[in-house]
Amino acid sequence: MIDLYTFTTPNGRKASVMLEEVELPYNVHKIDITKNEQFTPEYIAINPNSKIPAIIDQDTEMKVFESGAILIYLAEKTGKFLPVDQKGRFQVLEWLMWQMGGVGPMSGQLNHFKRYAPEKIPYAIARYEKETLRLYSVLDKQLVDKEFICGDYSIADIATYPWISIYESQGLTLDNHPNLKRWVETVQQRPAVQQGMKVP
Amino acid sequence: MIDLYTFTTPNGRKASVMLEEVELPYNVHKIDITKNEQFTPEYIAINPNSKIPAIIDQDTEMKVFESGAILIYLAEKTGKFLPVDQKGRFQVLEWLMWQMGGVGPMSGQLNHFKRYAPEKIPYAIARYEKETLRLYSVLDKQLVDKEFICGDYSIADIATYPWISIYESQGLTLDNHPNLKRWVETVQQRPAVQQGMKVP
Repeated sequence: MIDLYTFTTPNGRKASVMLEEVELPYNVHKIDITKNEQFTPEYIAINPNSKIPAIIDQDTEMKVFESGAILIYLAEKTGKFLPVDQKGRFQVLEWLMWQMGGVGPMSGQLNHFKRYAPEKIPYAIARYEKETLRLYSVLDKQLVDKEFICGDYSIADIATYPWISIYESQGLTLDNHPNLKRWVETVQQRPAVQQGMKVP
Repeated sequence: MIDLYTFTTPNGRKASVMLEEVELPYNVHKIDITKNEQFTPEYIAINPNSKIPAIIDQDTEMKVFESGAILIYLAEKTGKFLPVDQKGRFQVLEWLMWQMGGVGPMSGQLNHFKRYAPEKIPYAIARYEKETLRLYSVLDKQLVDKEFICGDYSIADIATYPWISIYESQGLTLDNHPNLKRWVETVQQRPAVQQGMKVP
C-alpha cells in the first residue's frame, strides 16, 4: 500500500496518474496548499521542501518526495513505463528531466503571472508565454514520428501530460502544434489518466 | 572518451565538475549561447531542446542531454557518487530532482530579473529572491547534521553547488545559513570542483 500526499496541481497529478497506471493500491492524503498544510511539522517530516506530492511505500518503508523521483521509484517497483535497456532508459530520463527543469517550472511561472499575480506584468507574462510555447514546439517536433514522447508510453509522458493539459486555462492553443495536440488527445483517453487527473 | 557540449553557466558546470570528479577523459566543445550556437542544426541533432550541456559517449555512442540525466549516466557508468542501495539512491535522486525543478529554475529566474532583464521589475525580483532564499533554508536544514546533502558526497552536491556558488553575484548572502555556508566552503575546496568550474 502506498500513501500519497497530494493536491489538485499538475505535479500532484503526475503521481496519481502513475499510481493508476501501475495499478498499485494507494491512500490519498490531501495536503491543501491553499491552507498552508504543507508547512506542518508532520508534513515537513515527509517532505522537507514543503511541496506536494510525496509518497510513503508501506511495503518498503521508503519515503519519496519530488514528483520526478516518485515516478522513477514507482516505475522500478513495478517494472513499468521505464525501459531497462540503457538507450531507452536514458531517453526517458532525459525527457523526464526536461519536464522537471523546463515545462514544469516555466509553465508554472506562466500560471503565476497570467492567473494569480496581484498585478499584471506584461514583460513577465510574455517571457513565460514565449518559453512555454518554445517548449511546446520542441515536444511537437519530438512527436512528429512517435505516438508517445520516447516511442512507447513512459513516465516521460506521465510527467508531461498534466502540465500540457492545462494549456486552455493558460490562454494557449495547440493549433500550431498538431503532433502535440494529437498526443494530448491520445493520452487523455487512457482510463488511468482520467482517473488520476481527478485525484484528490 | 566523452564529448562535452557546454558553456559558462551553472548547468554546464554540473557536467564538467562531474567529469573531473569521475576522472573520465573528455573533449570540450564550447556552445556559445550568447551567439545562439545552441540553435544550429548540428547542435539540435545532439539536444533537440537547444540547451547546454549535452554529452556524447564515444565508448557507447550514447547521446545524453539534460544535466540531471547526464549526472545519472556518468554516475552509473563509473559507479561513483550515486549509492546502489535503494534508500541511499532515492535520497540522492530526490535531491537531484529538487535541484532540477527548484534551485536551478528559481535561481535562474532571479538571475534574469536581477541582472539581465532590460527593466527592473520589483515584484519579480522579490518573488525569486524569496523563493531562492526559501530553498537555501531547506538545504541549510538538511545540512545541519551532514557534511554533504545526502551524507556522502554525491551527484546531488554536484548538481547543486554550481547554482549556490553564484550567490554573491545575485546579491545574496549565506550569513543566515551557516550549514549551507560551511558546505559551499567544503565543496569548493575539492580540486575536481575547482577544475570543472573553469570549463569551458
